[in-house]
Amino acid sequence: MKFFINEPDQIVNEAINGLLTNPKLARLDSFPEIRVVIRKDWDKSKVAVISGGGSGHEPAHAGFVGKGMLTAAVCGDIFASPTVDAVLSAILAATGPMGCLLIIKNYTGDRLNFGLAAEQARALGYEVKTVTVDDDIALGQDVKKRGLAGTLFVHKIAGQLAEEGKSLAEIAEIAQQVIDRTASIGLSLTECQHLGQQTTSRLTDEQVELGLGIHGEPGIEVIPYAPADHLMALAIEKLEAGLPVDNSRYAMIFNNMGSVSPIEMSLLVNSFSHTKLAAKVDYMVGPAALMSSINMSGFSVSVLRLNEEIEKALLAESEPSAWQIQAFQQPAEISSPELPETIPYEASANAKVKQLIEQTGALLVAIEKEINGLDAKVGDGDAGSTFALAGKRLLLVADKLPLNDTGRLLLTIGRILSREAGGSSGVLLSILFTAAGNSYSKDPDLGKALLQGLQKVKDYGGAKVGDRTMIDALEPAFEALAKNESVSAAAEQARKGTEYTKTITNTKFGRSSYLSEAVLKNIPDPGAEVIARVFEKIASLK
Amino acid sequence: MKFFINEPDQIVNEAINGLLTNPKLARLDSFPEIRVVIRKDWDKSKVAVISGGGSGHEPAHAGFVGKGMLTAAVCGDIFASPTVDAVLSAILAATGPMGCLLIIKNYTGDRLNFGLAAEQARALGYEVKTVTVDDDIALGQDVKKRGLAGTLFVHKIAGQLAEEGKSLAEIAEIAQQVIDRTASIGLSLTECQHLGQQTTSRLTDEQVELGLGIHGEPGIEVIPYAPADHLMALAIEKLEAGLPVDNSRYAMIFNNMGSVSPIEMSLLVNSFSHTKLAAKVDYMVGPAALMSSINMSGFSVSVLRLNEEIEKALLAESEPSAWQIQAFQQPAEISSPELPETIPYEASANAKVKQLIEQTGALLVAIEKEINGLDAKVGDGDAGSTFALAGKRLLLVADKLPLNDTGRLLLTIGRILSREAGGSSGVLLSILFTAAGNSYSKDPDLGKALLQGLQKVKDYGGAKVGDRTMIDALEPAFEALAKNESVSAAAEQARKGTEYTKTITNTKFGRSSYLSEAVLKNIPDPGAEVIARVFEKIASLK
Repeated sequence: MKFFINEPDQIVNEAINGLLTNPKLARLDSFPEIRVVIRKDWDKSKVAVISGGGSGHEPAHAGFVGKGMLTAAVCGDIFASPTVDAVLSAILAATGPMGCLLIIKNYTGDRLNFGLAAEQARALGYEVKTVTVDDDIALGQDVKKRGLAGTLFVHKIAGQLAEEGKSLAEIAEIAQQVIDRTASIGLSLTECQHLGQQTTSRLTDEQVELGLGIHGEPGIEVIPYAPADHLMALAIEKLEAGLPVDNSRYAMIFNNMGSVSPIEMSLLVNSFSHTKLAAKVDYMVGPAALMSSINMSGFSVSVLRLNEEIEKALLAESEPSAWQIQAFQQPAEISSPELPETIPYEASANAKVKQLIEQTGALLVAIEKEINGLDAKVGDGDAGSTFALAGKRLLLVADKLPLNDTGRLLLTIGRILSREAGGSSGVLLSILFTAAGNSYSKDPDLGKALLQGLQKVKDYGGAKVGDRTMIDALEPAFEALAKNESVSAAAEQARKGTEYTKTITNTKFGRSSYLSEAVLKNIPDPGAEVIARVFEKIASLK
Repeated sequence: MKFFINEPDQIVNEAINGLLTNPKLARLDSFPEIRVVIRKDWDKSKVAVISGGGSGHEPAHAGFVGKGMLTAAVCGDIFASPTVDAVLSAILAATGPMGCLLIIKNYTGDRLNFGLAAEQARALGYEVKTVTVDDDIALGQDVKKRGLAGTLFVHKIAGQLAEEGKSLAEIAEIAQQVIDRTASIGLSLTECQHLGQQTTSRLTDEQVELGLGIHGEPGIEVIPYAPADHLMALAIEKLEAGLPVDNSRYAMIFNNMGSVSPIEMSLLVNSFSHTKLAAKVDYMVGPAALMSSINMSGFSVSVLRLNEEIEKALLAESEPSAWQIQAFQQPAEISSPELPETIPYEASANAKVKQLIEQTGALLVAIEKEINGLDAKVGDGDAGSTFALAGKRLLLVADKLPLNDTGRLLLTIGRILSREAGGSSGVLLSILFTAAGNSYSKDPDLGKALLQGLQKVKDYGGAKVGDRTMIDALEPAFEALAKNESVSAAAEQARKGTEYTKTITNTKFGRSSYLSEAVLKNIPDPGAEVIARVFEKIASLK
C-alpha cells in the first residue's frame, strides 16, 4: 500500500499543521510535545468546551474547533489518548471564570487522562465538568459502550449552548441528555490500515464487519458481504433495536470511516432511505468523513433523538466547515419539459429538394461497404455504416419533411441525425444542420448558414482544416456556396479538400491520431470522401 | 475489492437518489432515462447555470446544485457524457427569459452533446451560451486541455453572478475569464476502480502518476513513489510553470480524488504549505472530495488567479454544502499556559507523616518481585514494578513534600504519580490522591476525602467493587476510616477485600478479564494485595 506520508512518526503533527492553515485556529506553542488546537479568537468569556482523544479520526476532533462547537481539541498519537499534561494545557489555556466542559469518548485511556487532568485543574481552582460519550450500541447493554461518531452531536450542542452564554451546569446537563439520546452503529468492508505499515486483512472478499469501533479493533460480528441495501438494512436493524418504539424524530450523522468513495456514500444514503428508520429522520449531517478510522472502508450511522431545545442548538450556525447539517427527506420530482418531436414541423412539398434528399440517402446506403473499407484502414471501420444509417433514415422520412422551407428542413435534419445517427459523426452532422438552420432562420443565405453551422462543428468538435476530418471537404465546398458559386464548383472544392487529406499524415485529432505516416499516406479521410461523393451526386442532379 | 453497491447498472441512479434526500433538490420526472437534478425552488427569473457530464465525479456535478451555484446538473453514466436529450431537458426545464449558461468540461463527448443541445435549444427560441473549461495544465500548451476540478470555480462564480441578476452576456464573459485564470494538476498513488469490477493496477507499489485526468486514463508521467512533501513539490512545480510570474493572489481547490484518508489530506495541505506557491494563496476550498474519480487515491490542486470581481463572487455565501471555502495561511501559535510544577507547594515538616511515607515507599520497593510474580499469574506481570517505581519516587522526594498539610500533600502525591508512575494504575492512583486532595481542601475529613477520591477512580476507571481490582481493598478500608475507625480496622477491611478477590473468577474488567476461572481461583488481585500490605504496614507503625 502507498500512502501520502513523510516520516510515520510525523503524520499527526503534519496533519494538524495542515488543518492550521485555517486562520481561525492556532496551536499552543508547546506543540508538538503537546498538541492542542484552539480558537484563535477565544477570550475565555464563556464556558470552554474541550474534547479530543487519539488521532486518526480526522476531521475529529481538531476539525470541529470553532465558534459554536469546540473551544479547543487535544490530540494524541494515532489511536492513543493524549497525555494528562496535554489535556491540562488545553484546560488552562481555554478556561475562564465560566468554567470548562470536557467531552470524553468512553475509552479507558481517555477517561483516565482526561479525568486526571480535570482533577488537577480543579486542584488549581478551575471549574471543570466532564461528560463521557458512549453511543456505541454494537456491544449490547451489559458492556461499557464505546464513544463513536455520535460524540459530534455533543460537541455541536454543548458548543452552541456555550456560545449562547449558558452556565457550565446547564451545558453539562444537556450534554448528558444528548449522550443518553444518541446511538451509533458501524459497518465496514475492510479494516483500517496504519499508514506506512504493511498489513494483511483479517477479512476475506466475502466478509464484512458489523458493529465496529474506530480503532481497528474487530467488529462484533463478521457477516457475509452482500449488496449495499442488505448491509444497510442489517446495520439499521441493529441500531433500531436500541431505540424507543415511539414517534420520536431524529437527526442523523452519516459518517464515512475514511476511504469510501463519494459515489458509494451517496448510494448508501439511498440504501438508508429505504429503511423504516428513515421516515423518522429529519436532518442529516454528512455524508462525509466526520469521525474516521484512518482509511477504513466503512460507514457509521449515528442518530440523536430530538427535543425542541436540542434541535434548536443542533441547527444553529457554527463555524467549523466539517460540520454540515441539512434537512432529510425522500427524493422529490418535478415535471420534465416536453422535448420537441423528432420532426416538429409540418411536411411541405418541393420536388427538387425531395430528389436531392432521396438521391443523397441512396448514395449513403450504396457506398456503405466501400467507406467502411476505407475506414478500416485508418479508423475503426464503421464510418460507412454510420452514414448509411443516416441515409436510410432520410429515405424513410423524406415525405414527412418540410421540404419547401429550407431553415426548418435544416433544423429537422439536425434533429433526425441527433436521435437516429450514432457516434461522434452523427452528433457533429446534427450540430452542423441545427446551427445552419438557426442561422438560416435569421438570415436566409444557405452558404453563409452552412458556414455558420461548420463553425459550430469546429467549436464543439475541436478540429479544424488540416486535421484530416470531413471539415477538410466541407469548408472549401461551403465557402464556394457562400460566394454564390455553383454546386459543381462546390463539389470540385470538396474533392480537392478530400485529396488534400491523403497528404495529412500527422494529426493530433480524431480517428487517425494514433496511426503512423506509412498507414495514412495516400488514403483519404473517410468522412471527407463521403462529403465529396455527396456534393458530386448533388452536382450531377438535373 | 468490495464496494458498497447493489446492481452495477444502478450505481448512478441510486447515488443521485441519495443526494436527493436533500429537500432543496429535485429530479426531473423523466428520471432515470434522463438524469437531471434541479433546484426545487427555481423560478426561471434569473440566468440558469447548468453543468454536468459523466458520473463518477461526485459530489460534482449534482452536489453543486443550489442557490448561488448550479441551477441544474445533467448526469451521464459513469465517465460517459449525458445524452443530448438529457442536456436539452435540463435547458428547457431551467431556462427563462434571462437565458442559460452551459458550463462544459473539455471532453469530446461533453462538447458535442452539450453543444448540440445548445443548438437545439436555440432553434426552440432559448437564449443559450456555452463556455468550455480546460484547466488541466498537465498536457502542455499544444494539446487540448481537459476540464478538471477547476470547473468548480466556474460553477461558483457564474452561479453567484446569476443569483445577483447579471445578464447572460456578462456572466458568460466573466466565466470565460475564470476559465482563462484557472489551472489544475493532479497526482495519484493508484488508478480509480470501476465499482463492481476486478481490476489490476498498471502501477507498482513504487510508482505514482502525475498529471492525471479524472476518467481513469493514465497520467502524463509515471514517477517514483516518494514522501508526500516531495510528491507535492513536483506537482506544484508543474502547476507553477503554467502561472504568470507576478504578484497575483490565488484561491485554491484542494481536491480528494476519491479515497485518500482525511488525515492524509490534511498532511498534504501541510506539504502544500511548504511550497513557494502557498505564499500566494489566500483561500482554500477543501480539502475534500469535490471532483472525484470514483475511488482514486490521489489529489488535485486547482488555482484561480483572483481579481476583485472574481474574489467577491467566490466568497459570497452559497447553498451547496459541498462547497466550503476558508482563508488560507501558515499555522499560528498562541502561548501555552505554564503547567504547575510537579511539587507546587512548599515543604513542611511532620515526623509521623514522613515516617508513613517512607515506610510505604520502602514497602512498595521491597515487595516488587513478589507482586510481579502474582501479576504474572493473572495479568501482565508488571504490577509490582509499577508500584515500586512510585515507591522509589516517594522516597526520593519525601523531604520536599508539604508533610504538615494533608490536603496539599494529597494533591502533591497525585501530581507525582501523574508525572512519574506509569500505566493505568499510576493514573488511577493519581486520580485518587488528586480528587481526595480537592475534597480535603473543602472539607478536611480524610476518610471522606479518600472515599471521594475513590468515587472518581470508579467514575473514570469504570470498575466497581467485585470487579477484581484494587477497589475491592480500597473501598472497605476507606469506609472504615470515614466512620472514624482505626487504621488497624481499615487494614483488616483491606485484607478482607483482598481475600474476596480470590473468589472473583468471572470479571469483565481489567487485567484478568480474559482469564479462565481455573487460572484465577485462589489468587488475589495484585493491586488489592498491595493496598492490603500498605494498610497493614501503616497500622504497624508506632
